[in-house]
Amino acid sequence: MSKLSIALVSGGMDSCVTAAIAREDYELAMLHVNYGQKTELRELKAFHDIADFYDVEKRLIVNIDYLKHIGGSSLTDDTMEISTSGLSDEIPSSYVPFRNTHIIAMAVSWAEVIGAEKIFIGAVEEDSSGYPDCTKSYYEAYNKLIEVGTKPSTHIEIITPVIDMKKSEIVKKGMELGAPLHLTWSCYGHSDLACGACDSCLLRLRGFREAGVEDPIGYEK
Amino acid sequence: MSKLSIALVSGGMDSCVTAAIAREDYELAMLHVNYGQKTELRELKAFHDIADFYDVEKRLIVNIDYLKHIGGSSLTDDTMEISTSGLSDEIPSSYVPFRNTHIIAMAVSWAEVIGAEKIFIGAVEEDSSGYPDCTKSYYEAYNKLIEVGTKPSTHIEIITPVIDMKKSEIVKKGMELGAPLHLTWSCYGHSDLACGACDSCLLRLRGFREAGVEDPIGYEK
Repeated sequence: MSKLSIALVSGGMDSCVTAAIAREDYELAMLHVNYGQKTELRELKAFHDIADFYDVEKRLIVNIDYLKHIGGSSLTDDTMEISTSGLSDEIPSSYVPFRNTHIIAMAVSWAEVIGAEKIFIGAVEEDSSGYPDCTKSYYEAYNKLIEVGTKPSTHIEIITPVIDMKKSEIVKKGMELGAPLHLTWSCYGHSDLACGACDSCLLRLRGFREAGVEDPIGYEK
Repeated sequence: MSKLSIALVSGGMDSCVTAAIAREDYELAMLHVNYGQKTELRELKAFHDIADFYDVEKRLIVNIDYLKHIGGSSLTDDTMEISTSGLSDEIPSSYVPFRNTHIIAMAVSWAEVIGAEKIFIGAVEEDSSGYPDCTKSYYEAYNKLIEVGTKPSTHIEIITPVIDMKKSEIVKKGMELGAPLHLTWSCYGHSDLACGACDSCLLRLRGFREAGVEDPIGYEK
């Protein structure tokens, strides 16, 4: 039995290829985070499809849609309570400061319980749009926090295998490893047929084009 | 108008005195975390009583009872979903690995939104029972993560003013600052009259005894 690692799988291409890389050396557990995005159910389906493809039994789905409040204006009210249910689309899904820290904390807690050694994350510094929690120095600092903040007997570490890659390199790596790119979902707009027009679709399509590979999923236009 | 800081206020004595210290130099916002503990409602009342005492308008209450799953056995099941509602008392409230990281991440996200500069936490290294996320090196590492993981324009920092104090020193400091110790709640067992027998009551009572001060709250025995 090989050693266990957790892969964070959003359902998109970067995390799928990251899981494929992790699987080269580890048995996988997979963590998926819902945060109230419009295409949440479609992404969750992609997560389960990818997990099925790799025969992953240990799956954890966490809802952090309460974090949306923090990005919204409601938090500036005088007295408010963060509810963890009943949220709807009216709250803007704007950037939540420090959001990745919450998600990784969940992965670390889970890793310590199930005995996973590594946490694989498909962060890409190039795509990070300046979000400070997508950089290599952020992950280095987080690894230090994990080292001092978990049991001395554990050595959990975050691994970011695609952080320096361009989208086209990620496509090529995925092809090389036989990653199930046909099961991934990137579109932010639609849940049936990818729109081909949103930023995420455009970034993905350019990656495939530059890699000289046809994207296996269908597009509306 | 003085600068803004967040105080994490559980409702217990350490966090109350920490808030009193923070208030010397800052306008306060207060964050309270529910994690499904038995005396949750009593602690929430203590939180609001302390916030009222200090005329704190900005209050945030976060439920993280879903984290209890991570400490329980359910997480080792093959396929499970963490629900954020409908939990009951049957899940053991055992140590959740890395729990403080989740709580502080919430405080940091909120701090960035409301423009708070410091996050005051009543962590006490002596009481930490070996939990790795209660040590000074843990908070140093966390401050580094905050520095690289938040906007370059912000400089949010965790402050732990009572981390080296004994319980009796915390009592004395609280008396000196006029902290509302009579509004705090420490008992893990009861919600009406403190039991005086649980670990938390015993630690508190010893602190008052060693400080030569009478505990202003009542006890069953």
